[in-house]
Amino acid sequence: MPSTSQVKPTIWSSRIANIGVSEILQIGAHAAQLKSQGLPVITLGAGEPDFDTPKNIKLAAKQAIDRGDTKYTSLDGTKELKQAIRSKFERDNGLEYELDEITVSSGAKQILFNAFMATLDEGDEVIIPAPFWTSYIDIVTICGGVPVIVECSMENGFLLTPDNLSAAITARTKWVLFNSPSNPSGAAYSINTYRPLLELLLTHPNILILSDDIYEHLVYDDVQFTTPAAIEPRLKERILTCNGVSKAYAMTGWRIGYAGGPKDLIRAMAIVQSQSTSCPSSISQAAACEALAGTQDFLETNLANFDERRRLVVDGLNKMEGIACPTPLGAFYVFANCSGVLGKKTPGGKTLETDKDFCTHLLETAYIAIVPGTVFGLSPFFRVSFAASEAELREAIARIAKAVKELS
Amino acid sequence: MPSTSQVKPTIWSSRIANIGVSEILQIGAHAAQLKSQGLPVITLGAGEPDFDTPKNIKLAAKQAIDRGDTKYTSLDGTKELKQAIRSKFERDNGLEYELDEITVSSGAKQILFNAFMATLDEGDEVIIPAPFWTSYIDIVTICGGVPVIVECSMENGFLLTPDNLSAAITARTKWVLFNSPSNPSGAAYSINTYRPLLELLLTHPNILILSDDIYEHLVYDDVQFTTPAAIEPRLKERILTCNGVSKAYAMTGWRIGYAGGPKDLIRAMAIVQSQSTSCPSSISQAAACEALAGTQDFLETNLANFDERRRLVVDGLNKMEGIACPTPLGAFYVFANCSGVLGKKTPGGKTLETDKDFCTHLLETAYIAIVPGTVFGLSPFFRVSFAASEAELREAIARIAKAVKELS
Repeated sequence: MPSTSQVKPTIWSSRIANIGVSEILQIGAHAAQLKSQGLPVITLGAGEPDFDTPKNIKLAAKQAIDRGDTKYTSLDGTKELKQAIRSKFERDNGLEYELDEITVSSGAKQILFNAFMATLDEGDEVIIPAPFWTSYIDIVTICGGVPVIVECSMENGFLLTPDNLSAAITARTKWVLFNSPSNPSGAAYSINTYRPLLELLLTHPNILILSDDIYEHLVYDDVQFTTPAAIEPRLKERILTCNGVSKAYAMTGWRIGYAGGPKDLIRAMAIVQSQSTSCPSSISQAAACEALAGTQDFLETNLANFDERRRLVVDGLNKMEGIACPTPLGAFYVFANCSGVLGKKTPGGKTLETDKDFCTHLLETAYIAIVPGTVFGLSPFFRVSFAASEAELREAIARIAKAVKELS
Repeated sequence: MPSTSQVKPTIWSSRIANIGVSEILQIGAHAAQLKSQGLPVITLGAGEPDFDTPKNIKLAAKQAIDRGDTKYTSLDGTKELKQAIRSKFERDNGLEYELDEITVSSGAKQILFNAFMATLDEGDEVIIPAPFWTSYIDIVTICGGVPVIVECSMENGFLLTPDNLSAAITARTKWVLFNSPSNPSGAAYSINTYRPLLELLLTHPNILILSDDIYEHLVYDDVQFTTPAAIEPRLKERILTCNGVSKAYAMTGWRIGYAGGPKDLIRAMAIVQSQSTSCPSSISQAAACEALAGTQDFLETNLANFDERRRLVVDGLNKMEGIACPTPLGAFYVFANCSGVLGKKTPGGKTLETDKDFCTHLLETAYIAIVPGTVFGLSPFFRVSFAASEAELREAIARIAKAVKELS
């Protein structure tokens, strides 16, 4: 379980006492503090596109406001939005979901929270491949579950293998979680790499499968996005296919996530939502409807932009001695290995022992805020988000290169 | 604990299995079914104003969209919105909160959920005066707490007395919950009725106090709204003062609630929110900012409208034999006693045994959907929401009167 050295106030519930303060937030706070001293900090930790929400989506939201769509909607999504989601699943994934197999939340994070609150009892296990998005661990923990972390090596493209998965399964395994393309590694499963894992899961009929497809539309080169329910229809009744509009349509502030899954699970998730937030914003739902059902032109431009930045960052990092940066297949992060700089000394005479040391050194001397692999469950690595302008990325790469060169 | 006869799927967590399907939703579904058969159903169960969101608020939201305020905001509210909330607490309640004593959620329901998730361990007790908003029970239950219900009689204006409160306190009491003006009863505490309760709570230093002030701006006649933290500053460090823009500014669909409270509690609530939904909609936050900081003209017109409807409904119900309807001091509900019609026979020959029988009879024969007191923890009563048009209310009163007259 995540730990923290902070003293917890006595009024806190034990489920909260188990949740540490996010290290990403701590790095952000450190960066903000340096910035406030007038230092030229560049933060490459963001999990959101730097583009604005497309115009057609903004217009749809404004029309909803004018129309008076400012009231409670159905608890887990308007009929219009659920229909748009159904069509999206069919169009993009070849998946058929009925309206009562679809749910809408205030962000994809709430989809995960609802799913785990709805199903986890104290001690139930959730298998989470590392490197992972840190919130997976905390959400499972706050819901009383036990995260079972399975390390996935860089050599294997940060992908889970059937052997690793099999070794992690116990009688208490309730869920296996996939996130492809992955935050932080940018790894993406293909039909061929998913299939043996799904075949193994066919032999474990009590395990549920959560596929977090939030980066679906950010896949590069000739990568074909695919999702477990489409690959193995026999598992569909145990799969929750999660998605949202935040990353694909630059809509992080609107807070709309959605999922397709078995009716019983969707119903339980609605019960959780009915006691925590009720319906998502009616205006945001109208905007999401346009995002999914309107023109999809934005996706291509968006992807081309990210692809240029990706090359820039990967090439830049791989030129540095001691850094090995695999080319991510999707999402907007690189997850680079820094084992070659560990053991070296900074100009200030400090020896870099861990990826965290390396990131702290970069923040304090080059004013570049990036996140160490330890936060994502795999070391020694660091994550760079390329959801930043080309100018910022060039400057950041130059500064990191200089800092690395100065190590001895 | 709420029970239900439905069989729960085996994948559901036990915390969900304890939550029944909302009876209000069941009545709504029954009403919708009759409506779909072409019957002239009038639903008086709504918990939302029927007015549109004021223009200045809608404009502020559209400006935020144009400006590109479409990104993640600070986890529990933008600085601008927190400043507007701080000014609101000062202006309306004479309460001073620092920015880190203020939190913003996706609706006031999430404020309650965050507070209980952040503080309740299995078996902790929450004292809830009845009649109550049904979600209080379910939220406490889903968070592992035990709702301790204290009935408040019509004779005492549906208010808690110090004796009743004292008798309900145990070593496990974690929270006492107030909701003034109240859904469903419309009861409102004055400084004089609050004071002895707060004095008693001064002698119990481990108990937290939640004041749900969501109906603050809907108080009638010469009633002065007041809130515990303003009355008893010595308790302020244990009070969570909850509010939201939904009811006051006809903004139910925007999903913005907020609270002021002690820093440790606010921080713990942010941790819960960071693992469930992250920030509320950036657009809705901009709208809420204008609601709280902009012109407050809407409140007066809104109140005058509701006041007329209130008189119409109270007068209409009190003319019926067997119905006794106290005049609500606040909110937009009446909670009327129907003991005088119980034991009577319907034209169809059925004897009305309970308030639920009475409400079912009205729905099935007069096509009026209202909610029995049993749902709110106090019988025999029924709740009528007057958040409906005057024409609908007149027609509804006429139909109920006819149905009551036909009982024998």
